[in-house]
Amino acid sequence: MRKMIILTEGMTTVQHAKTAINLICYKPEEVLALFDRTKTGEPVSPLLGIETNIPIIGSLNDFPEANTFLLGVATAGGGYPDEWRPIILEAISKGMTVVSGLHKYLSDDPEFVEAARKHKAKLVDIRKNDFKKVAIRKGIKETTLRIQTVGNDCSNGKMITSYEIALELKRRGKDAKFVATGQTGILLEGDGIPIDAVIADFVNGAAEEMVLRNQHHEILIIEGQASIIHPRYSSVTLGLLHGAMPQGLIMCYEMGREFTKNLDHVKIPPMKRIIELYEAMTAPLFPCKVIGFGINGRKFSQAEVDYERERIKEEFALPACDVIKHGPAELADAILGFKY
Amino acid sequence: MRKMIILTEGMTTVQHAKTAINLICYKPEEVLALFDRTKTGEPVSPLLGIETNIPIIGSLNDFPEANTFLLGVATAGGGYPDEWRPIILEAISKGMTVVSGLHKYLSDDPEFVEAARKHKAKLVDIRKNDFKKVAIRKGIKETTLRIQTVGNDCSNGKMITSYEIALELKRRGKDAKFVATGQTGILLEGDGIPIDAVIADFVNGAAEEMVLRNQHHEILIIEGQASIIHPRYSSVTLGLLHGAMPQGLIMCYEMGREFTKNLDHVKIPPMKRIIELYEAMTAPLFPCKVIGFGINGRKFSQAEVDYERERIKEEFALPACDVIKHGPAELADAILGFKY
Repeated sequence: MRKMIILTEGMTTVQHAKTAINLICYKPEEVLALFDRTKTGEPVSPLLGIETNIPIIGSLNDFPEANTFLLGVATAGGGYPDEWRPIILEAISKGMTVVSGLHKYLSDDPEFVEAARKHKAKLVDIRKNDFKKVAIRKGIKETTLRIQTVGNDCSNGKMITSYEIALELKRRGKDAKFVATGQTGILLEGDGIPIDAVIADFVNGAAEEMVLRNQHHEILIIEGQASIIHPRYSSVTLGLLHGAMPQGLIMCYEMGREFTKNLDHVKIPPMKRIIELYEAMTAPLFPCKVIGFGINGRKFSQAEVDYERERIKEEFALPACDVIKHGPAELADAILGFKY
Repeated sequence: MRKMIILTEGMTTVQHAKTAINLICYKPEEVLALFDRTKTGEPVSPLLGIETNIPIIGSLNDFPEANTFLLGVATAGGGYPDEWRPIILEAISKGMTVVSGLHKYLSDDPEFVEAARKHKAKLVDIRKNDFKKVAIRKGIKETTLRIQTVGNDCSNGKMITSYEIALELKRRGKDAKFVATGQTGILLEGDGIPIDAVIADFVNGAAEEMVLRNQHHEILIIEGQASIIHPRYSSVTLGLLHGAMPQGLIMCYEMGREFTKNLDHVKIPPMKRIIELYEAMTAPLFPCKVIGFGINGRKFSQAEVDYERERIKEEFALPACDVIKHGPAELADAILGFKY
C-alpha cells in the first residue's frame, strides 16, 4: 500500500492543495503527513478546510515508513520552484517513489533520473503521456450511459462531484465507473488519461479512448475539466466533451464565484448562457442535456447552501446538490431516472 | 536558399500532399522535385491539380544540388510508414537538412539522430515544441485588427485563404502579417507555432502568444484550424479561437463536401448553424463576427464557383470569393472596411 508524504511546501491552502485535500478525504489510510516547512506543526484542518489529524512535517525523517512522496499541489503552468529540488532529491535518496502530477516532468530532469537510478527510487509523472490517436467516432456503445461533469470555470468541484456520484451509484449496486481525466482523479482511481497533458490534436481521441476502454460498465461518470468558455483551458474542455460525447451533463459551479479563477478581469457568463453553449456545442454530434447541478458551497453555511440549492432547482427545474453538504443522492437519482 | 526535394511517396494526391502543393505554388524557386517511386516520371499537374513543371523523381541522385529533404505529406495521426526509413536515411547520409511536419518526430528516432550526427545533417521537426504558457488575457492591443479564418471542417482552404488575403493586403501597402499556426504555413512564412502539437493546457496560451508577438503589425491574418464542431480536432479549433480572440472571422468551406473529411459517417452541420456556434462561443470573451466567406471550389468549374459565390453572398449578405479562382480582393476590401 502507498504510505504517502505529500509535499505542499508554501502552498498548504485550499486553492493550491486540491490533490492533497482529496487524497486525505478519500484515501486517509494512505496519507501519513503533509510536508511544508513554512507550516510545520500547525493543524491542517483550518488551513485546508477539512477534518483531519494528519500532521504537517518539515523533515522526511519523521515518517521513516513512508514509501511515496507526492508533489501534491497544482500550479498555473505546471512548474515547481527550484527550492523544491533538495527536498525531492532527499526523497529519492531514501528510495521513495516520487509522484508528480505537474506538467514539468521529474523524469525529464537528468539529476533526478540519475539519483533515482542510484537509489533504486521510482519517478512517476502522472501527466506524462505519449497518446497519439485521433478520434474515430465508431464502436461507441449506445447502451452505456455516459454522464459527464462540466463547469462554468476550472477548479469548482467537478472531480469530487463525479467521484461522489460514482461512489453512491456503487453503493446502490450499480456497475458505475468513475472515469478520471486529471491527476488527482487518476491518483484516486488508479487509472485514467491526464487529458490536459495530451497533445492538442489527440485530446478528442484520448477522451474517446477512455470511453472505449470503460464501456463494459453500465454507467460512466466522466470527470470534466475547466469550462467551455474558459480563456485558458477551453481547448481541454471541448476536446473532452466531443471525444467522450456524454448523453447527460452535471453542471458544477462554486457559489459566490463571479470571476474566472486566477483571471480576475474575466467575468463568468450567466449560468443559463453557459448551459446553452454546452448543449449547442454537443447537439450536432450527439443529443446531450444538462440534467442536474453540482453545487460547491464550501465558503458558505449549510443554510446558505440549502437556500442556493432551492433557488437553482427552481430556476432550472432540475435536481441539484452539494455532494459534500447534502450527499450525492439526488444526482444519483437523476442519473438512474435519465432516459436518453 | 532552400533547394528542396519533397517526399510524397505513395501520396502524390490532392488529399495528402497539401504541404507539397502549397510550397510548389508559393515558393516555386525552392522546390526542385517531388520524390515518389510509385509515380516517377509522371507529370505533377494532373495529380495535384496545379500548374507546374516540377518532376517526380525516384532517386535523390537526380538533384545533387538539393540541400533540403521535406516530408511533404499530412497523415491522420501524424506518423509515417516504415518504408520511408531508408529514404530518410539516404537523405541524411547526403548531409541534407531533413524537415518534417509530422507528429512522429525525426529527432526522437535514435537511428536518425546518430546518422545526422555522423553526416552533419540537420533534423528539423516543425511540430516539435515545448510551449508551456497559459493564456493571461492581458496586453492585447485593441488597435491591432485580428482576422482569423475558420471552417466547417478541416483541410478546406483556411491556410491558402489566409495567406492570399495577407499577400493582397501587403500589395495594397498595408502592414499585414500572416500568422501561421500549422506546419505548411510555418514553412511558407518562416515563423509561427504549430498549434495542434501544443499540449492541451497551453493551446489557448500559444494562440495568445502568437498575437502578442505580432501585434506591432497593423492587421494579423491568423490561420485557423479544423472546425469548432470537428469530432477529432475541435479542441485545437476552440483553443486557437479563444487564445487569438479575433474581432472578425472569414468562414472557409469546400464546395460539395457534405461529410467530415476522413469521417464519412459524420455529417457537417448547416453553415448557418456553424456560424452561430462560432459567434456564440466567442461572444462571452470578445465581440466577433463572421465578415466573409472563403470558398474552396477546386472540384468545380469557374461557372459553378461563380454561381456558388453569388448564392452564398445572397444568403448571408456577406462578401465571398474563392481566392484562387476570383482572387482575394473582395475579402481584403471587407477587412479594410471592417470597423469593430
